[in-house]
Amino acid sequence: MRKIILFICLLISTSAFAQTGTASYNEDSAFIHKLANNILSNRAVYNNLYYLSKKIGGRLAGSPQMVMAEKWGYKALQEAGADSVRMQECMVTHWVRGGKDKALISFKNDKGNLQTFPVNVLALGNSVGSGAKGVKASVVRVNDFKELENKKDELKGKIVFYNVPFDDTLISTFQAYAKNVVYRGSGASRAAKYGALGVMVRSMTNAMDNVPHTGALRYTDSLQKIPAVAVGVRDVEKMDTLIDEGKALTAEIFTYGKMLPDTIGHNVIGVLTGTEHPDEIITVGGHLDAWDVTEGATDDGAGIVQTIDILRAFTSMGFRPKHTIRFVLFANEENGTRGGLKYAQEAKAKNEKHIFGLESDAGGFTPRFISLPVNEQDRAKLDTWKTLLAPYYLDGFVNGGSGSDVGPIGSTFHIPVGELMPDTQRYFDVHHSTNDVFEAVNIRELKLGAINMAALLYLVDKYGL
Amino acid sequence: MRKIILFICLLISTSAFAQTGTASYNEDSAFIHKLANNILSNRAVYNNLYYLSKKIGGRLAGSPQMVMAEKWGYKALQEAGADSVRMQECMVTHWVRGGKDKALISFKNDKGNLQTFPVNVLALGNSVGSGAKGVKASVVRVNDFKELENKKDELKGKIVFYNVPFDDTLISTFQAYAKNVVYRGSGASRAAKYGALGVMVRSMTNAMDNVPHTGALRYTDSLQKIPAVAVGVRDVEKMDTLIDEGKALTAEIFTYGKMLPDTIGHNVIGVLTGTEHPDEIITVGGHLDAWDVTEGATDDGAGIVQTIDILRAFTSMGFRPKHTIRFVLFANEENGTRGGLKYAQEAKAKNEKHIFGLESDAGGFTPRFISLPVNEQDRAKLDTWKTLLAPYYLDGFVNGGSGSDVGPIGSTFHIPVGELMPDTQRYFDVHHSTNDVFEAVNIRELKLGAINMAALLYLVDKYGL
Repeated sequence: MRKIILFICLLISTSAFAQTGTASYNEDSAFIHKLANNILSNRAVYNNLYYLSKKIGGRLAGSPQMVMAEKWGYKALQEAGADSVRMQECMVTHWVRGGKDKALISFKNDKGNLQTFPVNVLALGNSVGSGAKGVKASVVRVNDFKELENKKDELKGKIVFYNVPFDDTLISTFQAYAKNVVYRGSGASRAAKYGALGVMVRSMTNAMDNVPHTGALRYTDSLQKIPAVAVGVRDVEKMDTLIDEGKALTAEIFTYGKMLPDTIGHNVIGVLTGTEHPDEIITVGGHLDAWDVTEGATDDGAGIVQTIDILRAFTSMGFRPKHTIRFVLFANEENGTRGGLKYAQEAKAKNEKHIFGLESDAGGFTPRFISLPVNEQDRAKLDTWKTLLAPYYLDGFVNGGSGSDVGPIGSTFHIPVGELMPDTQRYFDVHHSTNDVFEAVNIRELKLGAINMAALLYLVDKYGL
Repeated sequence: MRKIILFICLLISTSAFAQTGTASYNEDSAFIHKLANNILSNRAVYNNLYYLSKKIGGRLAGSPQMVMAEKWGYKALQEAGADSVRMQECMVTHWVRGGKDKALISFKNDKGNLQTFPVNVLALGNSVGSGAKGVKASVVRVNDFKELENKKDELKGKIVFYNVPFDDTLISTFQAYAKNVVYRGSGASRAAKYGALGVMVRSMTNAMDNVPHTGALRYTDSLQKIPAVAVGVRDVEKMDTLIDEGKALTAEIFTYGKMLPDTIGHNVIGVLTGTEHPDEIITVGGHLDAWDVTEGATDDGAGIVQTIDILRAFTSMGFRPKHTIRFVLFANEENGTRGGLKYAQEAKAKNEKHIFGLESDAGGFTPRFISLPVNEQDRAKLDTWKTLLAPYYLDGFVNGGSGSDVGPIGSTFHIPVGELMPDTQRYFDVHHSTNDVFEAVNIRELKLGAINMAALLYLVDKYGL
């Protein structure tokens, strides 16, 4: 308990606020405050995330849950007050896990007896299965691709164990992820090139549990497609220790993944038509799909319910934007990005005019930054906006782009696209794993993210970017 | 999954960094970076918090767990490399819950039949018990003290139900707490003044679960001491709805709390002796006690393990401060503040020279601010320090004081005392409840807090404040 409660006065903001006491600044500040109160007082976002996570759950492209989620999203956008809602059809990847992934490690102990233990694994998304007969081979540990190349002559008929530790000293966990994700993405094909039969990849997480974290791989078409699994880090450490002790490990992997023909999915699009420039479009969204083993609460239920709640808040306040805002629940981000690509392709084909895109796909955690491509002319404007958003916990704007769903409209139309960048510390504890559940999302943090996104949309609609 | 990984470049820091390229700035920056890597790479803080939460758990002043925690803390400070560790004896409050708290609500339903349901309650700390016979009376709901005063003639022989909603629109949850905590602290005596037999207080939380949140009350000695419980918010809403429907509620409360004579507890103090000014003391700490029903992981296991880890990091890096730093695990903060008071009293009696105090008692969440009493002369210095700490997620310094443990040395010696102010969104989900468990603490967030505290101690030791 803290007995001395502080009246918080943000020193960092004082000087910036002093320059900003114009009538329109005060009007914006009052609007954003009303927006914040609306979002913080409402329970729709809680109920929506609960339903999407607990009642629908993992909703990978092509799954029955995908269809349920699309129907649910359609209704939710209607209830949030969209002028219209439509399903934009697109062909989506259709990968199925096909069974319960399993792996066993065996080695001869110091007495010469064979010992076997199971390790926690998940097949990587898009990977081929070994089938019930499994793949069994000796394990070759490599710590990076350089070591893989050095050992290329030893890999034929082996299982490659990519043991690349997550760099805990990087403050932004996304930087650690960026360093390691190549092993998940292309590790299988790079090992197959030298005749390996399978790969095991250390899970990309800061957590100290034993939960495996899946995610998409991409095979090189010209090479043999081999099974690939992510391994929980406690088991990775166990394997690592045995190898350090000089034990020769044999792994046996059982996976059942299968890539089926593309199937039909949909972007679900709610529209709030602009009062002054109805043909000029601002897009905001998240992705509706989620890995099969998760509840998809953080990735990306958070972005979905934020998108819907921004619409709900705007309409319940009677706010009408000058430009048309589209609230888009994108399809198939996880293992295809087909939704984002389709959205941009159709927009181009119809010769639409897009002016801005914003997404939320970095979790429902407490807001820190918004990533935007910023040039020097924008700086003064963003400094003012930063003071408007600071009361809602935004630290400011970082120079960067968006995630993969609004990225395509950015590059197609050469317009600024951005993304909410919440605190990153907990993201990879849950990412693509059974840890990604409703309970791991804090609803207030999620709402603060929605407030900052909604406020930014209001400002971009009013002043442009 | 996010395919586009951003290289984060903090626009907000650019201009401040430009002024700061001196040799000593670079030296400080390098030292803090080394400190951060040390803390982020080490597992002691995880193991310490695990032990304190799971193996010792709730450790209210006077309990056997308090004694276990003191012994554990003594050893942990030794292992972290303190030059010396001592137990500073102090008399502490000794309240015991004495049994399992229970409450029942009954009312006549629309058919005239009596219906009864249990509600989730916890006796407030320091409260007297009803004993096994219980207290049974009609319920009078009040929404604030003003309504209490208006209804004062109806309160004799009744149970007062303080239904004061937690204000979710306040961004800092501590502000919402500050508004409501008076009902927990003095609600019982204010109702007893008008003859009430007991009080039920709505739990102070943003969570939407039904977990009751306890905490200390203070009786007015001249008035009758009556039983008092906190009620889970789902049950509060149930009671509220029935009262809104015009139902007359009867409550029956069973609690067993008892205030025993003060007993002996200890502040546990680890010392790192200063190389240049050994007689000038900097204090850093958290509180070792925790409510009986909790694991005390957030409140204040976080502050305790941060304190110990700062010492560990300093000694493992071979860093020796110029001034003496005391790492203090304070006793009895929750229902007496006896540890903090004793520490200041003895310091005064011994005519010690204190220069700064820092504590962590607002949770192990991701850092946002450090609260310090700041005057205009300090501003430039703190602006520079802010740029040094920004890479470790500190937003800056807010003008304020400390928590209750280093507060007394602040007022006794008229020196600056401060506190880590992490993100507040999740604090009252767990505060003083069974939700306060090890699993609700994210170790990276906790470590980032420790990094910022350690860096600040380094800077104050080097440059003064």
